Amino acid sequence: MLKVLKFGGTSVGTLDRIQNVAQIIKKIKDEGHDVIAIVSAMSGETNKLIEYAETYTKVPVAHEMDMLLSSGERVTSALLSIALNAIGYPATSMSGREAGIVTDASFMKARIQSIDTTNMKNAIKAGKVVIVAGFQGVTEQNRVTTLGRGGSDLTAVAIAGAIEADVCEIYTDVDGIYTTDPRIEPKAKKLEKISYDEMLELASLGAKVLQNRSVEMAKKLNVNLVSRSSFTPEVEGTLITKEENIMEKPLVSGIALDKNQVRVGMYGVTDKPGIAATIFTALANANINVDMIVQTVGVDGKTDLDFTIPTTDLEACKTVMNTFAQQARNIDYNDSICKVSVVGVGMKSHTGVASKAFTALAKENINIRIISTSEIKISMIVEEKYAELAVRSLHEAYDLDK
Amino acid sequence: MLKVLKFGGTSVGTLDRIQNVAQIIKKIKDEGHDVIAIVSAMSGETNKLIEYAETYTKVPVAHEMDMLLSSGERVTSALLSIALNAIGYPATSMSGREAGIVTDASFMKARIQSIDTTNMKNAIKAGKVVIVAGFQGVTEQNRVTTLGRGGSDLTAVAIAGAIEADVCEIYTDVDGIYTTDPRIEPKAKKLEKISYDEMLELASLGAKVLQNRSVEMAKKLNVNLVSRSSFTPEVEGTLITKEENIMEKPLVSGIALDKNQVRVGMYGVTDKPGIAATIFTALANANINVDMIVQTVGVDGKTDLDFTIPTTDLEACKTVMNTFAQQARNIDYNDSICKVSVVGVGMKSHTGVASKAFTALAKENINIRIISTSEIKISMIVEEKYAELAVRSLHEAYDLDK
Repeated sequence: MLKVLKFGGTSVGTLDRIQNVAQIIKKIKDEGHDVIAIVSAMSGETNKLIEYAETYTKVPVAHEMDMLLSSGERVTSALLSIALNAIGYPATSMSGREAGIVTDASFMKARIQSIDTTNMKNAIKAGKVVIVAGFQGVTEQNRVTTLGRGGSDLTAVAIAGAIEADVCEIYTDVDGIYTTDPRIEPKAKKLEKISYDEMLELASLGAKVLQNRSVEMAKKLNVNLVSRSSFTPEVEGTLITKEENIMEKPLVSGIALDKNQVRVGMYGVTDKPGIAATIFTALANANINVDMIVQTVGVDGKTDLDFTIPTTDLEACKTVMNTFAQQARNIDYNDSICKVSVVGVGMKSHTGVASKAFTALAKENINIRIISTSEIKISMIVEEKYAELAVRSLHEAYDLDK
Repeated sequence: MLKVLKFGGTSVGTLDRIQNVAQIIKKIKDEGHDVIAIVSAMSGETNKLIEYAETYTKVPVAHEMDMLLSSGERVTSALLSIALNAIGYPATSMSGREAGIVTDASFMKARIQSIDTTNMKNAIKAGKVVIVAGFQGVTEQNRVTTLGRGGSDLTAVAIAGAIEADVCEIYTDVDGIYTTDPRIEPKAKKLEKISYDEMLELASLGAKVLQNRSVEMAKKLNVNLVSRSSFTPEVEGTLITKEENIMEKPLVSGIALDKNQVRVGMYGVTDKPGIAATIFTALANANINVDMIVQTVGVDGKTDLDFTIPTTDLEACKTVMNTFAQQARNIDYNDSICKVSVVGVGMKSHTGVASKAFTALAKENINIRIISTSEIKISMIVEEKYAELAVRSLHEAYDLDK
């Protein structure tokens, strides 16, 4: 098999851990597989370089930041290659350019346009382990670019897609995707498989293991992703794959919790056509990520609008909302709430999934303030003090500990 | 004027010093010059990376070391470019590859083969300061290489030659070339000009400011080199140029001292033809740098051989000499000696230069053990305890303090 492996900043955070990664690769090579490993910068390095640049200006030139930041991954790739060669496993490091990764010229947030896999294929043919510096590519003019947050995962998925690898394993410090956060519910179980869509919902709902951009790309390129840990490489991780590859589709795969939400209430709005559209357009123009929306028309002909935004957008949201202050009786902001979500592909073909959730929360006297549903997800806004209780109740209600 | 500037590790050793370098460049730009600046890694960075690699093996793969080590200069070049842009001076960093530097494939000690100056010229035309990551290039296969010790100086000189710059200024922490080491003789004077050949002699005799490889290249490419300090940029440095450019040729330019010498004596060798050749061939094959040689034939038909080697080669030298032990009465090693040298292009056309040196040392009762002369140099081996006294006597004898 041709395996693409990706090791994040924590997995290569010290010289010892890089040595450990070399051992993981050695074992996979010994099993007869070919390996392309993508590495991040040693944890802390990228932030250090950003701090350096910011001593000169808060807004450093983007194309110079990419020259600066791309060095961290180059260092790790060379060190890992040295470590592998030292234990008798021929390896060669490659920069993004050498790995054939061409991006657009959006410095600091470039998008991969194409990958010429020739160099990598030749090195594999020559029996070498290929170590690619993640997070970077070059423009058509050969200028180094970086891919933004989560860029090394993207590098791995894109390479796995381009070279048609059998699997793309993302090594972090957690050993897979769980039915819920084990710190909240110790009975949480690691999932063997999960579909791209479920993973996308879980990721956007607060599960931090994989980022949406990489999962979306894996889905698009049909790459079998595995989430596993470099600290416990003997533990099988979780396979993220297309729905058709999952034989037994579970009703519910997991419970996600997102505490970084603010509920915005705009009460007593004169219900003239288009008012909601005007408000949400203004919020969108300010790049505010509005999530759940409920509109209620009262008997007096006035409208109440309720919606949620990420906590980080709160100040920007207040600025926009103030321009509408005249048109409402009052506007309030409540950050003592959280979003609990039930995710599962099985929901598509089953009824009664939502009512089970409502019943479970009702049994614990937890009021649901806003509800929103999609084909494979039910999200509920509840008071933040009930967050953990809500997660545990739902986890039990759907028998996720079994 | 088009100026090529080179800033060494100490000159860019901290974020403040990089800021200081940006100010030096700003001033030169304000005077109406175009600037290409070559930078080293921040001092300590390269050694840190070497230590990292050596945790895995004492002999890391060379082509991976180059990937590793080249990152330090990339970081500095990006930081300096960010600092310049931040104060309103458009700048662009370039890796060795972007600067068009192609080398052979001798990793860790590559030699520059060609420089395509197109990118640099275009950036200069666009009004930008070009910041080049020193010490590195790429092979024709586009694999990063490094140039070995003193590599950033070489980058600067080679670029200055290829782009026909008016001057190549090497900024370090000393402000030029002195008639002798000012720590030994406080009356030492900074030289305004010195010829390539004198500089080469001084450098090989222990003056640490510029390395021979760069001076040789400057001579070959006819590049006007200036040695000056980034800590006192207002002080004019020393111009190293061709002899024809120096109107008043001084009799003697400087006195050099090298304490890292061992005198090897091989006494009572049976004087058969070819014995000296056999010994010195064996030493050369062991990469031992033999310097001054004196052969004396005694009345008994036995030969005494005296020569000097660098202290670092002592152990290797003993190993070789032991194989000849049978052929001599005895072999001894004396590291309590030093080499004092008088350098000056004026010697070519003057007589009596050497006798002035001998007289000066004799006046202080300093015995000369070995003498060797070249067209522009007289070197003398004396007891190490007389080192400073010898330097000061010679400095005075040739009126270098005037």
